[in-house]
Amino acid sequence: MKAVKLLVLSLFLSVFGAHAQDVLVLRKIYDEALVNGESYQNLRYLCKEIGPRLSGSAHAQKAVDWTKSLMDKYGFDKVFLQECMVPHWVRGEKEIGKIIDGKKEINVPICALGMSPATPREGLRAPVIELKSLDELAKLGESVIKGKIVFFNRPFDPRYIETGRAYGAAGDQRFRGPAEAAKYGAVGVIVRSLTESLDDYPHTGTTVFPEGAKKIPAAAISTKAANQLSALLKLKKLPVIQFYFKQSCQLLPDAKSYNVIGEITGTEKPNEFITVGGHLDSWDLAEGAHDDGTGVMQAMEVLRIYKSLGMKPKHSIRAVMFMNEENGGRGGDKYAELAKQNGEIHLAAIESDGGGFTPRGFTFQDLSSERLKSINENWSNLLRPYLADHLDAGGSGSDIEPLSVFENTILIGYRADSQRYFDIHHSAKDVFENVNKRELELGAAAMTSLVYLIDQYGIK
Amino acid sequence: MKAVKLLVLSLFLSVFGAHAQDVLVLRKIYDEALVNGESYQNLRYLCKEIGPRLSGSAHAQKAVDWTKSLMDKYGFDKVFLQECMVPHWVRGEKEIGKIIDGKKEINVPICALGMSPATPREGLRAPVIELKSLDELAKLGESVIKGKIVFFNRPFDPRYIETGRAYGAAGDQRFRGPAEAAKYGAVGVIVRSLTESLDDYPHTGTTVFPEGAKKIPAAAISTKAANQLSALLKLKKLPVIQFYFKQSCQLLPDAKSYNVIGEITGTEKPNEFITVGGHLDSWDLAEGAHDDGTGVMQAMEVLRIYKSLGMKPKHSIRAVMFMNEENGGRGGDKYAELAKQNGEIHLAAIESDGGGFTPRGFTFQDLSSERLKSINENWSNLLRPYLADHLDAGGSGSDIEPLSVFENTILIGYRADSQRYFDIHHSAKDVFENVNKRELELGAAAMTSLVYLIDQYGIK
Repeated sequence: MKAVKLLVLSLFLSVFGAHAQDVLVLRKIYDEALVNGESYQNLRYLCKEIGPRLSGSAHAQKAVDWTKSLMDKYGFDKVFLQECMVPHWVRGEKEIGKIIDGKKEINVPICALGMSPATPREGLRAPVIELKSLDELAKLGESVIKGKIVFFNRPFDPRYIETGRAYGAAGDQRFRGPAEAAKYGAVGVIVRSLTESLDDYPHTGTTVFPEGAKKIPAAAISTKAANQLSALLKLKKLPVIQFYFKQSCQLLPDAKSYNVIGEITGTEKPNEFITVGGHLDSWDLAEGAHDDGTGVMQAMEVLRIYKSLGMKPKHSIRAVMFMNEENGGRGGDKYAELAKQNGEIHLAAIESDGGGFTPRGFTFQDLSSERLKSINENWSNLLRPYLADHLDAGGSGSDIEPLSVFENTILIGYRADSQRYFDIHHSAKDVFENVNKRELELGAAAMTSLVYLIDQYGIK
Repeated sequence: MKAVKLLVLSLFLSVFGAHAQDVLVLRKIYDEALVNGESYQNLRYLCKEIGPRLSGSAHAQKAVDWTKSLMDKYGFDKVFLQECMVPHWVRGEKEIGKIIDGKKEINVPICALGMSPATPREGLRAPVIELKSLDELAKLGESVIKGKIVFFNRPFDPRYIETGRAYGAAGDQRFRGPAEAAKYGAVGVIVRSLTESLDDYPHTGTTVFPEGAKKIPAAAISTKAANQLSALLKLKKLPVIQFYFKQSCQLLPDAKSYNVIGEITGTEKPNEFITVGGHLDSWDLAEGAHDDGTGVMQAMEVLRIYKSLGMKPKHSIRAVMFMNEENGGRGGDKYAELAKQNGEIHLAAIESDGGGFTPRGFTFQDLSSERLKSINENWSNLLRPYLADHLDAGGSGSDIEPLSVFENTILIGYRADSQRYFDIHHSAKDVFENVNKRELELGAAAMTSLVYLIDQYGIK
């Protein structure tokens, strides 16, 4: 009976150009992830026993130690660390933010942006001006901006179907806004939290002051408070609305940290690598559950599934827990640097850094449309039963991007459903309870499946 | 510039056989749903101001009145009620459940299954026997079962990719288990909650006692407590483990209720209908947010989007808020009965009753593979940018199934991502806070898009 079923399956599959063997392997991978999966319990430990793990912190070091010991316990062929120096920014005391409307002071939820300097000890108070873009800032220029707190308030555009695009379209306000505003004499910057969700949570995230740039204090404000401030500003009352904030964050000297790497060594081409990874560091406001505890636990799960099923890859497969994605990217840089230095050949790298939500597929960075077409023709039917078959052009992940120094490395982003990601991203809501076990496991299975297909067939 | 872009778009599209006009219409539909959508605020009202609305309850009547008045306010071409008599089951006092292990009594979370009778006023206590299937029940027979409380404990099979299948595979324990166990002399039934989630929430749901069958009290037990009871039973201690439960539910005389219907009348074929719907009734343990507040609010939103964009359908489009899906299906029966009686022609019906989660596509019930192939060839590229293009064979929805009396009506299920649905389904967790605004809106847009395509082209 079983043999007949397999035969029918195999005939059926030959029509679609897929290999019956691959169909069975993918099914085994999914069964292992869904029945015996360990990513969820591992994530619970990372979130609840270790918690927030910003680069340079004691918790980040705990996370390094624990993930290394866990992979040792799993008995992967190699488990090792890659040392790198990382920025060590600390938030300090809980921030205070106030809208000052004449004699009325309204407390509002804010948090310092990562890498921001502190305000003066007594806080910073100045008239506030609302802007929607960096263009507007440049147009108004120093005569208007000087001495003010700039309030960047361009919201997410809800029309993007995948929320990462809305984040990309609004992100310049946070990434570059503070340094740009400083050029025109602003004394501080408040940025609308990068989320579509209307609530009381400020969302942190890094801001970039290029080498030599003037640094001014910068904070994120919750979307509800941003709307409130904007409404007050529209009333254009005199005296003008002011903003007050106080934060005591500091940038300490660089600290020593590590990428944590597990490997199953290839049977045929041990010096050719497929990397699958996420980042181990996280922001400090919550547990870094979806950003990016899920990614690192899925990467580790890929190796665990391989080992548990006794699958022997031709190429070496590495699970990499990158350090310092959030505020520096030093781990990703180090990984590529050492790969080059050691003469490694990198076939492909997959990063999961869009949350541990239901799989939709994968995105392929800078791949020719012919090769993308070929990937779709060869593999989308295999991934279709798992609804993980949306294979499109798109970004990969910032930790693996430095591997683009290798001409032939294919960079791939794991594509999780994006709808809920920015509701919690970089905020106090990014906790274990907001991760769904099955969604996490299905993602690990999808990643393992793609690793398997790349290992077997390469990317033509 | 715009004209050039459109030309390029149109050339591009002709390759894929889609119409440039349709591309633009779908984009407008999505923009309207995402920028001006009202489904989320309407759902909030339904959940928070009305709340649980089990058939026959005062809250169900409130929901009828409010949805009718809301559709009146929207100014749809017709808004009307369809009267139907519905079962009126009430839960009564909060249930009590206890595992009795010798002199030790362990309180466990249970809830009566819908349509179950009460226990005796003092409760029901008996030795308990764990079974995994109805087959096992039949094999053991009366000699073993008589006088016992049967504990059905077959868990969800996690290997199913879409959780509805796991529900289907485990569901006979709840739907038929109590009536079957009664045949062999069981005095009560405890069913493992139909969810993969391991927690302390009992999940209710209807159980069916066919006409004339013996009725015995039946309750759902939380999955954690089910595991605990199972573990104790495995110790096989003497005296045997007993179970005690007490519930005071009642089946009152049938009550008068209504389907609530809004319509935009077709410009060319007003007597030919496309129905889009969900069910207005809900279980009584929470707010019926995902089951099925989201479905009814999405159905209403389809008409609102049509009206707001000034779209004039050729056929009449109806949003139907069905009554009594949960414990009788009388509203669905009535809708089909009146459709037949009134000589209506029904082209297609779409039901959203799998939660308001991110769209994956649609499932088509009993459609030939040729027609399914043609649907995919014609429409999947149009839905692809919205990641709502998984168009497969599958079920539709129990409210629209009675329309299968019409030979040519296509029955369609809106296919939302299923991973989180049974975590909350029929439990106290089914509240507004567990609905994501964008996921809900994207679903409404996907449903509107399919209605538009069916209205324009039919299903070939």
